[in-house]
Amino acid sequence: MARGDTGPDFIEALARGLDVIRAFQPGRPVMSLTEVATAAGLARPTARRILLTLQELGYARQEAGGFALTPRVLELGVTYIRSTGLWEVARPHLERLVRQTHESSSIAQLDGSDIVYVARVAVPKIVALSVQIGTRFPALQTSLGKVLLAALSPAEVERVLAEPSRSGIEPRWRPDAGEREAVLREVRAKGWAMTDEQLALGIRSIAAPLRDGLGNVIAAVNVNAHAAETSIDKLTEEHLPLLLKTAGAISADWAVYQEVPHVTAS
Amino acid sequence: MARGDTGPDFIEALARGLDVIRAFQPGRPVMSLTEVATAAGLARPTARRILLTLQELGYARQEAGGFALTPRVLELGVTYIRSTGLWEVARPHLERLVRQTHESSSIAQLDGSDIVYVARVAVPKIVALSVQIGTRFPALQTSLGKVLLAALSPAEVERVLAEPSRSGIEPRWRPDAGEREAVLREVRAKGWAMTDEQLALGIRSIAAPLRDGLGNVIAAVNVNAHAAETSIDKLTEEHLPLLLKTAGAISADWAVYQEVPHVTAS
Repeated sequence: MARGDTGPDFIEALARGLDVIRAFQPGRPVMSLTEVATAAGLARPTARRILLTLQELGYARQEAGGFALTPRVLELGVTYIRSTGLWEVARPHLERLVRQTHESSSIAQLDGSDIVYVARVAVPKIVALSVQIGTRFPALQTSLGKVLLAALSPAEVERVLAEPSRSGIEPRWRPDAGEREAVLREVRAKGWAMTDEQLALGIRSIAAPLRDGLGNVIAAVNVNAHAAETSIDKLTEEHLPLLLKTAGAISADWAVYQEVPHVTAS
Repeated sequence: MARGDTGPDFIEALARGLDVIRAFQPGRPVMSLTEVATAAGLARPTARRILLTLQELGYARQEAGGFALTPRVLELGVTYIRSTGLWEVARPHLERLVRQTHESSSIAQLDGSDIVYVARVAVPKIVALSVQIGTRFPALQTSLGKVLLAALSPAEVERVLAEPSRSGIEPRWRPDAGEREAVLREVRAKGWAMTDEQLALGIRSIAAPLRDGLGNVIAAVNVNAHAAETSIDKLTEEHLPLLLKTAGAISADWAVYQEVPHVTAS
């Protein structure tokens, strides 16, 4: 992929290698060298050297017809989840909230103009969580994203939203700058956000910030409901107090967690 | 990390970059440059250039006290899950199996001497799935791993098990080569495997292979139970027929899925 000006410390080989991992497409476990090179925007010899390096490292393997990623690639994503420790701290609180509301709850962080799900506890039914962690949505159209954007200065909001979404989703609600700032001002004042079918029909949610011991917003937590099953009244009257209490409890535990050193076997 | 002889196509900068991502440790969201360099076995200037490159690419950011990974790292793992398409094919079948057995079911693949969970449907209770996908266990001590090892030739089994486990887990059951081959021969003959508290006390499971249209084993699927709640009889008399039927149904759908081209928006 073409990149703009990069500093003298930039390692092009690393950037291209990560592009090759991401070049593998949904439903295409095996891709030919030519397909990988095209998808990553690289010359064939470059793509070949990268794939052979990934193979040597155990992240890729040769198959009939080309190359495939191996499950070792999952380790990279898992590293992120484990390093934050946020899941470990949030889990018991999130589970209690879900037992109380009978709705699903998620935690997300901002990445460019998108939110990325980093933890989720679903209502007691069978769920497809592997596709949830790492899922991204345009930030501005979600309650989680509004909370995260409201923690930024107007200049930072402008800069972040200038980045194109990597979610592949066209949101239903597309406010102009004035409308957007009015919404974020309200979120800053109230301390929580709501989205009512602005991302997708049938989904409404409320979200609150998670903070560290210095008061910085480190993530957001939500309660997510089907519009046909859960009224706005029920969300804001019954679920919101529980959500705000949960957000405070996670934040308090997180502040303590950050103070103590951690040793983990593994 | 020190590496042995590598070919002329090996790109050291890519290998080191992936080492740096994995150097971030559980519960340590922010690590200093020196800590990252030490954990990855690199000189400080090398680690610094890599971290600045990852920052430029959006995979890392600078924080007070050092560097942290960003949620974008999750995209790398998600790429693997989506590329195989196995989850998409397996999900409805796995959900049905869990409704029938009231036990959790998982799908795993082999990576070196470990199995790696690539999909999981838990029983209708609140679960921590973010720590499940990508989780690894020593293959030989799990029913999933026995099924996957049984699909290899004895020479391949020998080679694979010579790789040290990356799971950090010390298994309870440590068979010698003769005992191991006897177990795998039985699995090859029966077409399924059982593990009864060989990995950890209190856990027993049964597993069966998933195959592609050519009959190659591409993954394994299991039913996992608490030994205190579910007897061996119940596992093998009630759950096993359902597991074998499910494995066949997933494999059949997978064979069809592989034949048709896929177009996915995103």
